[in-house]
Amino acid sequence: MTFSPIRWQNNSLELLDQRILPHKEKWIKYSNPIKAAEAITNMVVRGAPAIGITASYVMALSALQHKNKTNIKNLIFANLQIIKKSRPTAYNLFWALSQYQKLIDENNFNFADYLYLAKKIHKQDIENNIKMGDFGNEYIKDNDGILTHCNAGALATGGYGTALGVIRAAHRDKKIKKVYADETRPWLQGTRLTAWELLKDNISTTIITDSSAAVLMAQNKIQWVVVGADRITANGDVINKIGTYSLAILANFHKIGFMVVAPTSTIDKNIKKGEDIIIEHRHKNEVLFLNEQNLAPDKADAINQVFDTTPANLISVIITEKKAIENPNFKKINGL
Amino acid sequence: MTFSPIRWQNNSLELLDQRILPHKEKWIKYSNPIKAAEAITNMVVRGAPAIGITASYVMALSALQHKNKTNIKNLIFANLQIIKKSRPTAYNLFWALSQYQKLIDENNFNFADYLYLAKKIHKQDIENNIKMGDFGNEYIKDNDGILTHCNAGALATGGYGTALGVIRAAHRDKKIKKVYADETRPWLQGTRLTAWELLKDNISTTIITDSSAAVLMAQNKIQWVVVGADRITANGDVINKIGTYSLAILANFHKIGFMVVAPTSTIDKNIKKGEDIIIEHRHKNEVLFLNEQNLAPDKADAINQVFDTTPANLISVIITEKKAIENPNFKKINGL
Repeated sequence: MTFSPIRWQNNSLELLDQRILPHKEKWIKYSNPIKAAEAITNMVVRGAPAIGITASYVMALSALQHKNKTNIKNLIFANLQIIKKSRPTAYNLFWALSQYQKLIDENNFNFADYLYLAKKIHKQDIENNIKMGDFGNEYIKDNDGILTHCNAGALATGGYGTALGVIRAAHRDKKIKKVYADETRPWLQGTRLTAWELLKDNISTTIITDSSAAVLMAQNKIQWVVVGADRITANGDVINKIGTYSLAILANFHKIGFMVVAPTSTIDKNIKKGEDIIIEHRHKNEVLFLNEQNLAPDKADAINQVFDTTPANLISVIITEKKAIENPNFKKINGL
Repeated sequence: MTFSPIRWQNNSLELLDQRILPHKEKWIKYSNPIKAAEAITNMVVRGAPAIGITASYVMALSALQHKNKTNIKNLIFANLQIIKKSRPTAYNLFWALSQYQKLIDENNFNFADYLYLAKKIHKQDIENNIKMGDFGNEYIKDNDGILTHCNAGALATGGYGTALGVIRAAHRDKKIKKVYADETRPWLQGTRLTAWELLKDNISTTIITDSSAAVLMAQNKIQWVVVGADRITANGDVINKIGTYSLAILANFHKIGFMVVAPTSTIDKNIKKGEDIIIEHRHKNEVLFLNEQNLAPDKADAINQVFDTTPANLISVIITEKKAIENPNFKKINGL
């Protein structure tokens, strides 16, 4: 199954509301670019490639909204600035917007061109995922157990998924014994999104609490950890959902493979290493509350750092649509 | 502040219902030993030392209920068997019951003696915690950040706490910069219980998701991981809340101290190593639901292994009421 959480219909952008999955499948329609940019901030849509694709369609909405206005360049450029600030970490957002910046620089404000580019970015993402699925699949052996963190699936991309793309390819070839999905606190992307996607495809999936990974590794139930990425720096450091760094250390300790699956649009060659990245912190109530239910004592404080950095030396292989990069480093990333 | 989640009043056992903290402070009264044993299974009370103390009072309830009956030995022994099955992992349960087994073997069914023993075990536990607090405190330096997992506080013991006893002592001496409390999925003992206890004592506490520990270690915010234990085997392996093993690996990787605080009543010298322990698995719905709210897609599966084993070689020091044992091993544990 491949489906997309993002669609363009009747000159509007429609997003599958990921905040209320798995129990409600509701599409929200956007024709206003500012409202659509807020959907990225509010996590109606999430996942680095999906954020990049959504941002592209939001630029198409902008071109449509401001069509024929005399100050269209300023208006579209102002929208681009707002979209750029919707989330700080996923590189695909900036990668997609840089392509629209080029159109603006060329004084091209043609809606059809803006939409064409968004659809191209979207289609390319799915094709890349399918390629990465096959590249990553070459590392999976018969009867392997795979642990994945957060959701790097169809829901996080244009469709098919990065980490879940590898899992889909390996499942197609009947190699997977079981997928373990980290629940991924605080937003529960694993419980809500990954389990939903994989169960739809009849892939045997077991949800675990994030702190159960180590004991499953010790019990020899996990052969590969497979995750996506929000940004990859020039030296091969990977910024991904909080908990990824922890899994990489645990995989290393248990001598288990650690695979990162991300298109080259996630690679930020301008930033040398992970420490130089701005990591998003979201409101503490995402940790302290669940669906408006206060879990903690009043006045409790919490840290809600959304991503962490996994140094390249803890990564067995990074899968891109161009090739697999084992033991990533500056030279190999730069050569892509 | 030292308080106890367990009290004996008017010939009844009263337990502070830990399932509904922190928002409701409700005491449940038990006069029936079978119902009181169920309270252990259902986690009205939890934490290895608290389970041992509760079991002792349940034996007192049993002696009271069956007072003057002709077949009192069989009745009390049958109750002891039921209490023994209330939870499988915490050694303090078996340690406490073995002392009642001795009374039964001596044909002593005197309620006053049963209650006296329970009160003695309870009082001794608090005294031990205060001693351990001071022993552990010697390892804490000025301005240290401390990470604790689950709840090893007053709520998990007769009062004062094991891991939180060390934190209380270090806080009294103004040494702690900040306590980080792992939320501890799925039961959220950190969010619900540890934060509640520490905030009551005005100890600066920040709740983090379980998968945030590694990044805080990398950021140099944590100098010690301090946890309790449910059972310690003869070789110094520690069985404790799921996630403890993970923290020990992460502490090791970051060269941070890893301290286990537990009275000798937690040490099971009859079992050689951690792998030989029966680890409790509870119902998957504790992971998939939160307060009757289904988080996961229908038909989702989950693993809910409650404890894991941390091998002795990952532990910097085990604090008991007798002494601190650095780099624990069979010889040192056996010499206690």
